[in-house]
Amino acid sequence: MFGAIEAGGTKFVCGVGTRPDDIQLSSFPTSSPDETIKKAVEFIREVAGARLTAVGIGSFGPIDLNRSSQTYGHITSTPKLPWRNYDFAGSVAHALGVPVAFDTDVNAAALAEGQWGAARDIDNFIYLTVGTGIGGGAIVNGSLVHGFVHPEMGHIRVPHDLSADPFVGVCPYHNDCLEGLASGTAITQRWGIRSNAIADDHQAWELEAHYLALALTNFIFTLSPERIVMGGGVMNRTLLFPKIREELRSLLNDYVTKLRDNIDEFVVPPALGNNSGVLGGILLAQEVCSTSQK
Amino acid sequence: MFGAIEAGGTKFVCGVGTRPDDIQLSSFPTSSPDETIKKAVEFIREVAGARLTAVGIGSFGPIDLNRSSQTYGHITSTPKLPWRNYDFAGSVAHALGVPVAFDTDVNAAALAEGQWGAARDIDNFIYLTVGTGIGGGAIVNGSLVHGFVHPEMGHIRVPHDLSADPFVGVCPYHNDCLEGLASGTAITQRWGIRSNAIADDHQAWELEAHYLALALTNFIFTLSPERIVMGGGVMNRTLLFPKIREELRSLLNDYVTKLRDNIDEFVVPPALGNNSGVLGGILLAQEVCSTSQK
Repeated sequence: MFGAIEAGGTKFVCGVGTRPDDIQLSSFPTSSPDETIKKAVEFIREVAGARLTAVGIGSFGPIDLNRSSQTYGHITSTPKLPWRNYDFAGSVAHALGVPVAFDTDVNAAALAEGQWGAARDIDNFIYLTVGTGIGGGAIVNGSLVHGFVHPEMGHIRVPHDLSADPFVGVCPYHNDCLEGLASGTAITQRWGIRSNAIADDHQAWELEAHYLALALTNFIFTLSPERIVMGGGVMNRTLLFPKIREELRSLLNDYVTKLRDNIDEFVVPPALGNNSGVLGGILLAQEVCSTSQK
Repeated sequence: MFGAIEAGGTKFVCGVGTRPDDIQLSSFPTSSPDETIKKAVEFIREVAGARLTAVGIGSFGPIDLNRSSQTYGHITSTPKLPWRNYDFAGSVAHALGVPVAFDTDVNAAALAEGQWGAARDIDNFIYLTVGTGIGGGAIVNGSLVHGFVHPEMGHIRVPHDLSADPFVGVCPYHNDCLEGLASGTAITQRWGIRSNAIADDHQAWELEAHYLALALTNFIFTLSPERIVMGGGVMNRTLLFPKIREELRSLLNDYVTKLRDNIDEFVVPPALGNNSGVLGGILLAQEVCSTSQK
């Protein structure tokens, strides 16, 4: 039996189980590291007991994924100060005494959508989450992209026409990067209304679809994915999907002819709903377990 | 002995050999498909004779790399009309009677820089060419990224401040995408001077470094490469390297702390000079040869 933690900046989702139809979940707000990890550990210990074999963590970032680094398993330069330089994987491993796998929340979600969800049997795809922040995980040739650190897709720069949208952006590092312009936080601040309280016919959604389609264009030309799965709180506003597809078709302008006729199946919601991340934690745990048994 | 063809929109470079210090080269302008392929085939046949075992082609694009497609090995929707829908790999295989490997020019160049050049022993990197056009090839987890079609990194959108740079861009598909703003063609048209005749102290180079650094920022946040190798005619203007690194440092704004202190070794010229592409053709030929022997 495996434990999983999806660590978001606003809430934690914890799970114990083996697959989508065999998992017990618990969710609570993210507070201080000590308090939040204690809750997560207690839930996993209580449900799994002695049957626990490994835990997989999908965490908000940036995080240190370099196994030869002294700070492997730590959260690094996050603006959330109490979590900065926190030894996340180490704390969980110490408390539960089992192997712990550690990756980004979006990489975990990508794994789960690839295994059980909207990207089954697809070797090249992207999982993008649009919520409080924006992040992406990519599968290339069937494996996760990690690279030098890990992707931070929310921080790409996209065209921003200040005369049409004078909002300066909310990213503390880059102001009007993608996350600065199109995250839930940005929507709330730009319009002065909580993003999930904005009406369906508000112009906010045209602008949101525009920025997200620009971002998809850049991801497509860089990674050539076969599918893009878009999740996160903002994407629960499903009217965004047709708007994004239409804008994307116009931005690509037939350059990728193979996409033109399949765009409805190309940009899709997650099949695992809001559980992609925590289910990805289960997969990470299974992987670390089979690795450590070798 | 292997044959190689680097097919660019303005010139072809052909090679026969096995590695950087054992290769014979020939180069000529790109004209009609029949005439250009005839020259390439004659050169390879003359130098290699009966010792020829395979040919590798790195071609300008877009091209069809899907082996199960009826148009595998063809150039597809290029604006160069005589080459559109041309069966490049098939023509060469027919003329020379050996196995032919086919990939993009930038993927070939990336392979060669990874094997013998500026990215040896690096599992995650990007090769970017900035010349008449702009293109990129990526290695992720040690393998080329192909995906749904293949990357077309020159066509990402970057911020374009029309009040600072009113030039509308030259891309026939997207106007002011990266290639539309920062290719050699764009530089020449924006300033009304052939790009290689523009003085070193001309403001053109600050603007060029700005657009290229914006593009690198996006590639870094999407792929998290350990190194970016920048080649092509425009990058022969070596003063661009320090300008790009400085601008990149400012755009990343310490978000990727691991990069901050290593940026001089992070953005580098190709170690194989202008021969990365044709040497990559040799590697493609070796690969198809070892595959077809299995």
